[in-house]
Amino acid sequence: MDESSPRNGRTMFACLVGVSQVLGLASVVLTGVWLGQYRGGFAWDASPQEFNLHPLCMVLGLVFLQGDAILVYRVFSNEAKKNVKILHGVIHFFALIISIVGFVAVFDVHRASKIPDMYSLHSWCGMATFILFCVQWVVGLMFFLFPVTSSWLRAAYLPIHVFCGLVLLVMCIGSCLTGITEKLLFTIAPTYSLFASEGVMANVLGILLVGYGVLLVYLVTKEEYRRPPNPEEESLSVHFKTLTEGESPTSP
Amino acid sequence: MDESSPRNGRTMFACLVGVSQVLGLASVVLTGVWLGQYRGGFAWDASPQEFNLHPLCMVLGLVFLQGDAILVYRVFSNEAKKNVKILHGVIHFFALIISIVGFVAVFDVHRASKIPDMYSLHSWCGMATFILFCVQWVVGLMFFLFPVTSSWLRAAYLPIHVFCGLVLLVMCIGSCLTGITEKLLFTIAPTYSLFASEGVMANVLGILLVGYGVLLVYLVTKEEYRRPPNPEEESLSVHFKTLTEGESPTSP
Repeated sequence: MDESSPRNGRTMFACLVGVSQVLGLASVVLTGVWLGQYRGGFAWDASPQEFNLHPLCMVLGLVFLQGDAILVYRVFSNEAKKNVKILHGVIHFFALIISIVGFVAVFDVHRASKIPDMYSLHSWCGMATFILFCVQWVVGLMFFLFPVTSSWLRAAYLPIHVFCGLVLLVMCIGSCLTGITEKLLFTIAPTYSLFASEGVMANVLGILLVGYGVLLVYLVTKEEYRRPPNPEEESLSVHFKTLTEGESPTSP
Repeated sequence: MDESSPRNGRTMFACLVGVSQVLGLASVVLTGVWLGQYRGGFAWDASPQEFNLHPLCMVLGLVFLQGDAILVYRVFSNEAKKNVKILHGVIHFFALIISIVGFVAVFDVHRASKIPDMYSLHSWCGMATFILFCVQWVVGLMFFLFPVTSSWLRAAYLPIHVFCGLVLLVMCIGSCLTGITEKLLFTIAPTYSLFASEGVMANVLGILLVGYGVLLVYLVTKEEYRRPPNPEEESLSVHFKTLTEGESPTSP
């Protein structure tokens, strides 16, 4: 293998991260344009314009921000792990707040318009995903950011946390696809089959979301892009654990 | 680690495989019951009953059979790799044939009923998945079942093949979720929000499909369940390659 291979690997990684960000941002922008241009924009008055905040918040919070929160471990692989952990938790916190706004919006509109809640496959998938996202966030916080568990338990939980994080991202994207389908059939059913521009735009949004998800999962699971283990950080982590348990730390 | 750990691991693996099969079979049966009981059953006469073959074939072929074709490498980890490869290819072949029947059914009904093709997000996702599935099947056949490429190229392609296989399975399930949503809104829109039994049944089908997908991906990606590398098989594989290239084989 020639010496330029690791550099080529990093260049390819940077390109793929760039493409993922273009896909993610384009998804958020396209959601805004779709709902702004074709569905009357946004408001907070229990009108259909308030409903429009639901897809926007979900795509921004539970897809783009959640995806990028996962990606920080690969992008900042040379930074101190503790800082990356904090960034991972903070981005997830914003994702959580934004998705709560999105959920409140849809329940608010349903209540005002007397539309039943939680009857569709979209709502079942979306709610299951959101509840699991909250559980994952709280458990992740306890295990990794404020480690109140043993280092053995943390090490055992880490692969489950990573797997569940990726599953949640994919479930969010799946929920978005059902949501787009629902919204289009509720609003433009007669012209959707005539390739109305709104339908085509929303379909493209769905494809962008799928592309973002595939690229994110690829970047996170590819062995070559994994964060290399750092024995110094591991010992610091154990040291931190010792401190939280109230024992006297050993010399560094 | 105590001696019973590997046995516990195998017991857990067997349980998870069992649950995955229950979920997969329940998905196929529930699709049949839904379309048989609520949508008039099945036929091949360009009627809505012919359309019903589309979801049944897709769930059976591109979800259940594709998932199980992937799973054989984990389930038969002690069998000769060549035999497992053949089984993997054969199950995928059946999945391909069944999904072609499913595609023909929907295009047939669309043509007879003058419904435009390929306008919905479901059709875009489904068609993209099917085309990629065909590409993956042909390339996989060339690389692994009739290895016409160098062993270096095969080794380099293997992780891409595995990744793409899992992505395709997840994309199939995502397409099914949009398809279920579409079908319910086309047929029972007025009663869906009143928790009509057909809607609840189809929602449960969607959740079962998600459960099957999550479990499949977990079983295939978990390090502990991976097939252990076998140097003897590797040398046999190279030996086979030498034979196909027409060179005289070295003594075993």
